[in-house]
Amino acid sequence: MKTWQELPVGTVQLQDPFFAPRVRTNHERTIPSNLEKCHETGRFDAFRLDWKEGMPNKPHFFWDSDVAKVLEGMAYDLQLNPDPERAAELDRYVDLICSAQQPDGYLNVYFTQIEPENRWKCLRNNHELYCAGHLMEAAVAHYRATGKRTFLDCLCRYADYLTTVFGPGADQCHGYPGHPEIELALCKLADASGNEAYRDLARYFVDQRGQEPLYFIEEARRNKRPEDEVDMSLFQADRPVRDQPGASGHAVRALYLYSGMADVATACDDRELLATCERMWDDIVRHKMYVTGGIGSTSWGERFTYDYDLPNATAYAESCAGISLVLFCHRMLNITGDVRYAETMERGLYNGAISGLSLEGTSFFYANPQVFAENQKSGDGQTVRVRQPWFGCSCCPTNYCRFIPQIGSFAYSSEANTLRVNIPAAAEVHAALGKGPFAVRLEGAYPYDGALAFTVLETPATPCRLAIRIPAWCPHYEASEPGTLEKGYLVFERCWKPGDVIRLTLDMPVQGLHAHPMLEENAGRMVLRRGPLLYCLEGVDNGPMLSSLVIPEHQDFRTEPVAGLPGVMGLTGKAWRESRVDPDALYAPDTPVREETVFHAVPYALWQNRGTSSMLLWVRCA
Amino acid sequence: MKTWQELPVGTVQLQDPFFAPRVRTNHERTIPSNLEKCHETGRFDAFRLDWKEGMPNKPHFFWDSDVAKVLEGMAYDLQLNPDPERAAELDRYVDLICSAQQPDGYLNVYFTQIEPENRWKCLRNNHELYCAGHLMEAAVAHYRATGKRTFLDCLCRYADYLTTVFGPGADQCHGYPGHPEIELALCKLADASGNEAYRDLARYFVDQRGQEPLYFIEEARRNKRPEDEVDMSLFQADRPVRDQPGASGHAVRALYLYSGMADVATACDDRELLATCERMWDDIVRHKMYVTGGIGSTSWGERFTYDYDLPNATAYAESCAGISLVLFCHRMLNITGDVRYAETMERGLYNGAISGLSLEGTSFFYANPQVFAENQKSGDGQTVRVRQPWFGCSCCPTNYCRFIPQIGSFAYSSEANTLRVNIPAAAEVHAALGKGPFAVRLEGAYPYDGALAFTVLETPATPCRLAIRIPAWCPHYEASEPGTLEKGYLVFERCWKPGDVIRLTLDMPVQGLHAHPMLEENAGRMVLRRGPLLYCLEGVDNGPMLSSLVIPEHQDFRTEPVAGLPGVMGLTGKAWRESRVDPDALYAPDTPVREETVFHAVPYALWQNRGTSSMLLWVRCA
Repeated sequence: MKTWQELPVGTVQLQDPFFAPRVRTNHERTIPSNLEKCHETGRFDAFRLDWKEGMPNKPHFFWDSDVAKVLEGMAYDLQLNPDPERAAELDRYVDLICSAQQPDGYLNVYFTQIEPENRWKCLRNNHELYCAGHLMEAAVAHYRATGKRTFLDCLCRYADYLTTVFGPGADQCHGYPGHPEIELALCKLADASGNEAYRDLARYFVDQRGQEPLYFIEEARRNKRPEDEVDMSLFQADRPVRDQPGASGHAVRALYLYSGMADVATACDDRELLATCERMWDDIVRHKMYVTGGIGSTSWGERFTYDYDLPNATAYAESCAGISLVLFCHRMLNITGDVRYAETMERGLYNGAISGLSLEGTSFFYANPQVFAENQKSGDGQTVRVRQPWFGCSCCPTNYCRFIPQIGSFAYSSEANTLRVNIPAAAEVHAALGKGPFAVRLEGAYPYDGALAFTVLETPATPCRLAIRIPAWCPHYEASEPGTLEKGYLVFERCWKPGDVIRLTLDMPVQGLHAHPMLEENAGRMVLRRGPLLYCLEGVDNGPMLSSLVIPEHQDFRTEPVAGLPGVMGLTGKAWRESRVDPDALYAPDTPVREETVFHAVPYALWQNRGTSSMLLWVRCA
Repeated sequence: MKTWQELPVGTVQLQDPFFAPRVRTNHERTIPSNLEKCHETGRFDAFRLDWKEGMPNKPHFFWDSDVAKVLEGMAYDLQLNPDPERAAELDRYVDLICSAQQPDGYLNVYFTQIEPENRWKCLRNNHELYCAGHLMEAAVAHYRATGKRTFLDCLCRYADYLTTVFGPGADQCHGYPGHPEIELALCKLADASGNEAYRDLARYFVDQRGQEPLYFIEEARRNKRPEDEVDMSLFQADRPVRDQPGASGHAVRALYLYSGMADVATACDDRELLATCERMWDDIVRHKMYVTGGIGSTSWGERFTYDYDLPNATAYAESCAGISLVLFCHRMLNITGDVRYAETMERGLYNGAISGLSLEGTSFFYANPQVFAENQKSGDGQTVRVRQPWFGCSCCPTNYCRFIPQIGSFAYSSEANTLRVNIPAAAEVHAALGKGPFAVRLEGAYPYDGALAFTVLETPATPCRLAIRIPAWCPHYEASEPGTLEKGYLVFERCWKPGDVIRLTLDMPVQGLHAHPMLEENAGRMVLRRGPLLYCLEGVDNGPMLSSLVIPEHQDFRTEPVAGLPGVMGLTGKAWRESRVDPDALYAPDTPVREETVFHAVPYALWQNRGTSSMLLWVRCA
């Protein structure tokens, strides 16, 4: 039932001012720095299986996943930035990983050498199936990038073993992962290997989840861990997924699960399961998502809470959660062809999913606040508001390694003889359409400018369609020739010739986004939006105490280059600065006075790239 | 060096509309309900010292303090609401407690019967000295109320034993309490018993605190608890108290410590220590206090954090912390005669220190938020936003039992031949001035009305002074005869005759309080204040989504009776209600439209006394 196809990594070479430099930086700095950290912390050495008590760098049970995500990123990156040395390095890592596989197919550094007696003993907490999933994704990426089967075959052997351990049989384990991920990975492995048994296991994990008697409760009793008999909704395991009314629990787990559900639903033509995915998405975007596309508002359990609970200062909005929402939207867009998913995917891509990665590519937010004051402190490493080179739990840095090279594939899709431009980021795109290869070059400075020029480079002789999404934020556009508006995409259909050009200009007025009145902190405030980008104020441009600025919503905003961020366009305009008669009093009955000034705003995604200063996304409006 | 004297409990009979009903309710409901809970949970039975493993209600190491605070409250209450049955009941509890005293003087239910081997082994965590302090305060109160020495002598024996255990001697323990309280209690015990050795021990605890080598570090090493070797500032024990730059750590501990420091400083004429107290107070009111007088902004450690970190929704502002700030201000006011302390004491008394107690007197907030949304949930019992009849750690309910009957003593002070009216709450006051008894009746409806009438009931023949504080919030007043303004108090001095009347009217305009611009959430918002009361909006009067209301700051506000709260005066006036074109969208570029409406505000202290609905203190202003 899948409507569209994603374009494989390597068929879209981004050339835009926003993401193309990130793809380059990922190759040059983010992947190398993550590799270095994996070496430094012993994550690679762990695969030698020779760690002994007393040695440094005791393996941790989620380490395999970190290594796997970096390797998955290396594989994608090789398709965009060919590099023989890097390719050889990747192959060496693959060999190292494969060497740790056990005779029965099992592959996990921690439960092979540290707690072998506890293999599969605590699915709720131990991340074994989660690690397996990431290794599968890495193996599929390696196979797609290199054509080599080493890694793929290794993970197929692991998956073969898993199909014997888990399943409905009387002698099988009826459990499922505490941290979903393997569901979507098994679907990828089934696609790459052609072995449908893997997808069957994914479906088993999806449908078994939350069935009575609850596996995690029984497991907790076996393990004599009464403290584990609680909080089933944190794991999306309190009831069968089809009966879950909305998004709940740990946000990354939720979105990886929903992604796996979407994959299973598609392959199995399971409309009910797809409707469940739609219900989750709908709940998120209506009630549980930051304006940036960030999700999971609290550090307590890194989880969804309740409707409209989206505090700004304590926003958790984990980088991985922002990424996972984009991954889910991308799947849902291609499955359903519904442009709403493209809107949310774009919101995340240009804002909350990318904000966690510094421009120089080697420091990261784990959590993404919506406001930051220079005087702010945090005692908790993962919610620290200053970008860090690494974390004890370093899921976010490693996730960027694999996320960035996929962005081109999110931006474009194919459908029979249609090339879909979901996000008009400048690129050279080579799509295999039904009737043959169709290649276009999109030129433009999106997201900073709405002027787009599509030049056909290669085309079948028969008619093809070029379908360009008209973003919901765009109030007006002009095209060089008439197109047909179909469900949010402007479609140009004809027999193309190389050199044909379509020009399209999307108007990008500055708009003030207002929040639902249940988001009480945001009342009287707005987020400045231009195109897909949300803008924030930074102390480095505007001084501290950014809520002293009041910005008239209806005025002649202007774009301007951002000092210190080459190539980045910011916004400027009129503002009032409020001050008080008694500047020191904590509380006083003196009505603030206003004087006219100018504000300077930068894309939220790029905040804290010029040192650490205050930041404010929800600005006061008048 | 003490400037003023507090009036003993029992010499001030409140007759005002705000606190007098609370004093009555404390007698009729709060004390009985706390006694019942203490019985129900085994807190009294624990003093029989016959608990065995397997029995219900295993004693906890802070239970003694809960019982002590209720008994302290009963003793005060007997002086305001004489009740022979209650007095006999109190004596029975006193006998029960005294029966648990060990031959060496030690008195602690937990460490006598549950972990006798751990007596004094973990001063950092185990609350033994804290419990001892509360028992001392209860014993002194019982002695003052009844003249009976049973309880006092019992605690003197305990204190005698403590003076052998703790002190600078080579064979003594050089520790100090993890939770301060005993410092101020030992000073009270010294005053009541005349034994200065107790004050010396208080001084030792104060000065030994934070001296190198740090006792809590050494203790943690002895106990092999490396997890206890951190967070010394949580306990105000990272350095000597005189070297501490500002208020830090657990808020209740801090303010109990500062109160003990103030007591020690006064008795020992220790100007440096008093200056330390002043520095702490200054830091709190300039940087770390909610507008309500609430302190300790985070549930993590119930502690002070950093300057201007005063979030509204997650405000912890524990009820006990609000109470402790009032207790500290009261001490500092009487010690220094500086009216600033009366301002802050009044702020707490009428707002954040009393908000934790329901009007019917049997349900309590542990934490006091500054905003609440009906849809809000909390997974954590002590930060739950709905008043509860009791808590596992029930320090706040028991604290109200003893706090409420003392309020009259906070409101009035004496100084040689001056009666000081710190807070003009209607009352009959019998003060023992230097030249003889001086009694006045203050009539009026303060805090709802500023018209005050003082009638002299009894007076010495020689000149006396009546000194009435003119609150800082009062822009204008009128008196029936001229007085002299001296450091914030309007002083009338003469030879009085019984029946003499002084009339004073304090203007009570409605003012909008604005916050320091570092409190970014509050920008564009104000707190409505009239007299000492801060007002909030409640959903029951205004509907949900209270931040949709915008209130013009300069308008003709009116007082009005509050529906459902007999005797309470609220505020009303003009407002605009904002609404959006698309009411469901989480974020949309539609500028809200405004329509004129009316708002109704109630005293913050009285919120959530008409069911659970939304509450907003920082209202949007225009």
